[in-house]
Amino acid sequence: MFDILHRVGIKASSAKVYQALATPEGVAGWWTAETTGDKKAGGMITFRFTDQGRELGVFDMKILELGTDARVVWQVVSGPAEWVGTTIRFDLKQEDDFTIILFKHEGWKEPVEFMYHCNTKWATFLMSLKSLVETGKGQPSPHDVKISNWH
Amino acid sequence: MFDILHRVGIKASSAKVYQALATPEGVAGWWTAETTGDKKAGGMITFRFTDQGRELGVFDMKILELGTDARVVWQVVSGPAEWVGTTIRFDLKQEDDFTIILFKHEGWKEPVEFMYHCNTKWATFLMSLKSLVETGKGQPSPHDVKISNWH
Repeated sequence: MFDILHRVGIKASSAKVYQALATPEGVAGWWTAETTGDKKAGGMITFRFTDQGRELGVFDMKILELGTDARVVWQVVSGPAEWVGTTIRFDLKQEDDFTIILFKHEGWKEPVEFMYHCNTKWATFLMSLKSLVETGKGQPSPHDVKISNWH
Repeated sequence: MFDILHRVGIKASSAKVYQALATPEGVAGWWTAETTGDKKAGGMITFRFTDQGRELGVFDMKILELGTDARVVWQVVSGPAEWVGTTIRFDLKQEDDFTIILFKHEGWKEPVEFMYHCNTKWATFLMSLKSLVETGKGQPSPHDVKISNWH
């Protein structure tokens, strides 16, 4: 198995960072504007990506864990084949005046080119999350940072 | 062993992208302004990172491979313990009107927190490389994108 790992520090309380991870409204501000679903463990959440009306992808995830101000874990139930069965974890901790996010998208079966792409995209989305929490403005899809020709 | 993988697409010829990877002057435009050394396989290249005059790190690498317009491979000879012995590869290919970089920093012994940090930093530096080649202006250290409290 192969994992994607990131570490980002956000100058804000863990409560503010958690809010942006644990609710569909929060995630809509930094990952994809089209995020809908539950806000409790055991519930489902759907992330839709479109570009000028064209659907690029839909991910359904189960909320495995919500640990207030400390942890959010999703499991991918449907979406791109490479993602199904993988889990996505956000672990929060305090350091200096930062909330540190240790991010892990774990359980990729092979290090395929799509994983290279997703790794770079996760970095830009986590920077979007940082910007959302620190400045009030993220860059969620469809206005996300474009890194290549991938579609 | 654990690897860092990224994929970025740059709207430019592979010759232009290669130039920014294969020469100290090129790398100085997107990774660290303090890059010096050789531009031939077998030679050495030194990357120095400072912040307001304070030294943060120095990396000495051997240029293992230079494949014109196609590949650059470095091996870390000295630097942070976790980096020593690892290799850093940039493989280029053409797709649409993009040069695609498949980036691999391979051979980490453990997925330590420093690896999480370096993975996110590589993404921002590769976006700096993209910006350098596409617009003429990168964001190399010491004016690189700050992602956290890490030092």
